[in-house]
Amino acid sequence: MAFSPLIQKLIDALCCLPGVGPKSAQRMALQLLEKKRDAGLNLSQVLTQAIEQVGRCRRCRTLTEDDVCGICRSVKRNESLLCVVENPADVFAIEQSGEFSGHYFVLLGHLSPIDGIGPDDIGVTDLIDRVADGHVEEVILATSTTVEGEATAFYIAEHLASQGVSVSRIAHGVPLGGELEFVDGGTIARAMSGRSKI
Amino acid sequence: MAFSPLIQKLIDALCCLPGVGPKSAQRMALQLLEKKRDAGLNLSQVLTQAIEQVGRCRRCRTLTEDDVCGICRSVKRNESLLCVVENPADVFAIEQSGEFSGHYFVLLGHLSPIDGIGPDDIGVTDLIDRVADGHVEEVILATSTTVEGEATAFYIAEHLASQGVSVSRIAHGVPLGGELEFVDGGTIARAMSGRSKI
Repeated sequence: MAFSPLIQKLIDALCCLPGVGPKSAQRMALQLLEKKRDAGLNLSQVLTQAIEQVGRCRRCRTLTEDDVCGICRSVKRNESLLCVVENPADVFAIEQSGEFSGHYFVLLGHLSPIDGIGPDDIGVTDLIDRVADGHVEEVILATSTTVEGEATAFYIAEHLASQGVSVSRIAHGVPLGGELEFVDGGTIARAMSGRSKI
Repeated sequence: MAFSPLIQKLIDALCCLPGVGPKSAQRMALQLLEKKRDAGLNLSQVLTQAIEQVGRCRRCRTLTEDDVCGICRSVKRNESLLCVVENPADVFAIEQSGEFSGHYFVLLGHLSPIDGIGPDDIGVTDLIDRVADGHVEEVILATSTTVEGEATAFYIAEHLASQGVSVSRIAHGVPLGGELEFVDGGTIARAMSGRSKI
């Protein structure tokens, strides 16, 4: 052991970050201590502040330090459209596309009976209450295309069937700019079965 | 903008880590807030503590929270051997090899006139004082094999010439397990000129 106990503790703590192993953590720790002490102190302060203050939006369940998030507060957005996603990162990805101007509902996960994650854990009851409010006309299910994401979308669609709202699922198929030869068989099968007339 | 200001601030702060761009920083921030709040709080505390307490070892200049580091304090190590390296990470790499039982001197950088880094910034005077103490019999220069590292080694060797100690440079050549066809020309040239009789 060549690092002092405190430096080793910092290296171990940095390993909690996704994608960071012992080698990158060592590089990060030494670089913070050698050259970036101000940035490191700032990171430590912002991290504490975020962990203490960030909670869930009361309306859409996304992560935010406010009681109700910016998108839910905005008067410019279309209240009749509600897009259901798994994570706050998905909200970001959809916002980047510029194609959607409705509201979101963030599940913060997907149904996973094997891990004990049921409908209540991902807020399906809150979602049904929200739709029952009456403002929503269409629910767009944008959960991921994994088995769990599909199952979650199917479960939600079934439970919204009696509410008199239109329920849709985002299109699956070959991504833009994708070479057909590198696309997997499952995606091509979905692109075929979901074909549209031109 | 789909993230709240505080989450965006955390993403920006995480970008100070080496090898972390906006996309990885976003992933880190969301994962810390969604699933790893305890680990995140621990990281923030350890980071503050390390930045406040870790300084340089009075004898070898490596990073440590103690006045004198563990290696310099150890009575089991050979005082007559002194290995000069650029960074604390180099000390770790040499310790891992298990081949060296002497003391270290960490420059915390290399000579780089273009960036205004001169001999005093990397502690060459401290090194000469240390050698003048009289315990050191051999100085092993293990600075890196970049142009700056070579220049630093050459500069130190020149300034130690009058001290009556033996000065050596670690061997350069083909790494163990390396296929000759993938080794660069400069390394092969050094391996050739530094050949030894078997």
